[in-house]
Amino acid sequence: MYQLPEILERLVNSFSRLPGIGPKTAQRLSFHIIKSPKQEADELAEAILQARGTMHPCIVCGNLTDEDVCNICSSNNRDHALICVVENPQDIIAIESSGEYYGLYHVLMGALSPLDGIGPDDLRIKELIVRVKKGDIKEVILATDPNVEGEVTATYVKEELLKNSQVKVTCLAHGIPMGGNLEYADGVTLGKALEGRREF
Amino acid sequence: MYQLPEILERLVNSFSRLPGIGPKTAQRLSFHIIKSPKQEADELAEAILQARGTMHPCIVCGNLTDEDVCNICSSNNRDHALICVVENPQDIIAIESSGEYYGLYHVLMGALSPLDGIGPDDLRIKELIVRVKKGDIKEVILATDPNVEGEVTATYVKEELLKNSQVKVTCLAHGIPMGGNLEYADGVTLGKALEGRREF
Repeated sequence: MYQLPEILERLVNSFSRLPGIGPKTAQRLSFHIIKSPKQEADELAEAILQARGTMHPCIVCGNLTDEDVCNICSSNNRDHALICVVENPQDIIAIESSGEYYGLYHVLMGALSPLDGIGPDDLRIKELIVRVKKGDIKEVILATDPNVEGEVTATYVKEELLKNSQVKVTCLAHGIPMGGNLEYADGVTLGKALEGRREF
Repeated sequence: MYQLPEILERLVNSFSRLPGIGPKTAQRLSFHIIKSPKQEADELAEAILQARGTMHPCIVCGNLTDEDVCNICSSNNRDHALICVVENPQDIIAIESSGEYYGLYHVLMGALSPLDGIGPDDLRIKELIVRVKKGDIKEVILATDPNVEGEVTATYVKEELLKNSQVKVTCLAHGIPMGGNLEYADGVTLGKALEGRREF
């Protein structure tokens, strides 16, 4: 078998380690890097080093930031009595893209998953309780992923919150997603949509 | 709209510039980089810099190498009278994976494409003619891509070769790919397969 030059092989292997990048894509990316202008390759390498070296979780909410406190937690234009609980920093970007949310966030850094050995102590649940007990929080919106792990996590967080405070706990509405056709909605989603039906 | 921290934004943009990486994937990769062990991120950055700085086309055939002459051109176990002409260095890996080819290669570095302003002088066609005229080449196999640009390029290269030498010029067989079902083969491929039918 033909052996790729070692330096190229190493780049292909490094790319392969990224999520969703298979060996073929890793190869394509590697060849692109070698063909692309040197400046572009330098910029990518530099951006990787800088991001990995600089970005870290916000000490308050867990959102990624290059400062101590992220720009959402430190903003005066936000409702500091409202916290939306999400699993990962990426979820913040998704919710922000709605343009409909003006409160703060709390990132759990994952979801409960006994099979993967992830228990309550591995998530930032205690930090959430402390925030809610200490601060003037009126409502906590649970926005974990709509799957088994996410639902279990939401239930656990809700119980912990109610045990330790009088805060109002809500969750996102489930139902038919906007756009697309009803016929393509799955049964579970349709069930949730019927369950949550409201007057029109 | 929520603005990503600048350092994170820069990484997302750098990833987005890679082929086949859309904004969502770029975001996913960026978050992965920040979460992954520092060593992994360092290795990727280092591999990018090293590959871009070291790898270059072989002075004989155009294959990527970190030496002057690639390990295929310098191998004594190869048939130096046989040259397979391909568009890109990636094609060499594909052909090598067949395990059925023991000759040398010649990379054109693209295909003729008047619409994109790529003419014969932009490809390594002259270098091929020089190799064939100078060396003891018995056969040139044209293995450009099976599309319009590839076919036009193959035709042009063939004419140039025949004008300048007595070398035998062949091309890869077209037909039904192995594996899969006949019913999924497209009409053009089936036409080529019928045209190229042989005694069984």
